[in-house]
Amino acid sequence: MGESILPLLKSWAFASLILAGTAGLISPAAAQAPEDGFHQLVLYISEADRAKMNGVLDVAANVSRHYSGIGEEVEIEVVAFGDGLHMLRADTSPVKQRLANFMQSMINVTFNACGNTLDTMTRNEGARPALIEGVEMVQTGVAHLLQRSEEGWTLVRP
Amino acid sequence: MGESILPLLKSWAFASLILAGTAGLISPAAAQAPEDGFHQLVLYISEADRAKMNGVLDVAANVSRHYSGIGEEVEIEVVAFGDGLHMLRADTSPVKQRLANFMQSMINVTFNACGNTLDTMTRNEGARPALIEGVEMVQTGVAHLLQRSEEGWTLVRP
Amino acid sequence: MGESILPLLKSWAFASLILAGTAGLISPAAAQAPEDGFHQLVLYISEADRAKMNGVLDVAANVSRHYSGIGEEVEIEVVAFGDGLHMLRADTSPVKQRLANFMQSMINVTFNACGNTLDTMTRNEGARPALIEGVEMVQTGVAHLLQRSEEGWTLVRP
Repeated sequence: MGESILPLLKSWAFASLILAGTAGLISPAAAQAPEDGFHQLVLYISEADRAKMNGVLDVAANVSRHYSGIGEEVEIEVVAFGDGLHMLRADTSPVKQRLANFMQSMINVTFNACGNTLDTMTRNEGARPALIEGVEMVQTGVAHLLQRSEEGWTLVRP
Repeated sequence: MGESILPLLKSWAFASLILAGTAGLISPAAAQAPEDGFHQLVLYISEADRAKMNGVLDVAANVSRHYSGIGEEVEIEVVAFGDGLHMLRADTSPVKQRLANFMQSMINVTFNACGNTLDTMTRNEGARPALIEGVEMVQTGVAHLLQRSEEGWTLVRP
Repeated sequence: MGESILPLLKSWAFASLILAGTAGLISPAAAQAPEDGFHQLVLYISEADRAKMNGVLDVAANVSRHYSGIGEEVEIEVVAFGDGLHMLRADTSPVKQRLANFMQSMINVTFNACGNTLDTMTRNEGARPALIEGVEMVQTGVAHLLQRSEEGWTLVRP
């Protein structure tokens, strides 16, 4: 008899998990959380400070080296908004050359500029500032942070 | 026979979920996580810096606009502690007028002052500083951040 | 009959939870999240700023008092990296005495220095800086933050 009801039991246990998920017992974040050995990190910056920008790059390099050293993977997004956006501008970035080198050697790290901030800078300066080649854009920097957090990424502000 | 044991199966699967929750397999945070299309964000500030205060308000406005633009909702709490509390003081806030306008137009954003910090300022200054009208108080700023994080909110420091 | 299949039902429901965990439906973070009445907080610092260092200690003290006041427990890790490491150095810390007192009275708070940062300082200064007695070391500060976050701890940067 035990054998004959197994599929039924399995489907019920599964259905209850799905119900639990729908009812909010299991969060969307948990549902999309990374697996063992795979890590997801957002580093964010909002200040036009050269030392902070280098700090972000130091952290991205150290964390990448840390996980490759133990045979695990880490995906890193750098998100810049507010005055921090200067880090990613082709004309004003004090770390432009280091960033270019970084993008060639560290394929697990991406750089994302806040579109809202860019719009504000465009209005204030009368022309749209160019971004460093390879930099991506997100619509709203902190809404992107919120989404990533909901997906299970960790947010750190170096 | 299959039909007759369904209620039993259901209650067992449910009980095991509850047990799992009690045992920490399913976290309190996950249990209270937001549903799809509803987001919860805490912005915190601990510095008496006018640009940072305006940055917090810019972020609150941009994130609110972002989600209303895609037909989703976001609840935002601004939490001020340490020197950041000046943002919410009636006598010393450099963004007092903007905050007043904000509280009238952005009903999804609330402002919370750390009671511990206020106690310290009261001791140091000999009188309890008044808060801007509409500002709420939490007992301990960072304990409130911790609670919100456990409930599934995302913490960002602009 | 109901009685006879209970162990089977229980094991199936449990197995489905384990399967769900493996498939990422229940995250590693959720799996290790704290129980009710027990809280876990990481405070991190990356700046060599005396006021910030005192702010970190104020927050650790206030949050500890907050939870003991309501009969709950909180475990706090202070993690210092980058220029923030000076907080924990025996030779350069501007809060050395307060830290020593802290470590004697607050057994729920530990202090952790980033090993990567210490390596860099060692290279730059020609000698390995000594840490304040009782300070622990983690290999990579931000990788440690990431791990704690995955385990369900909350990260705050005072």
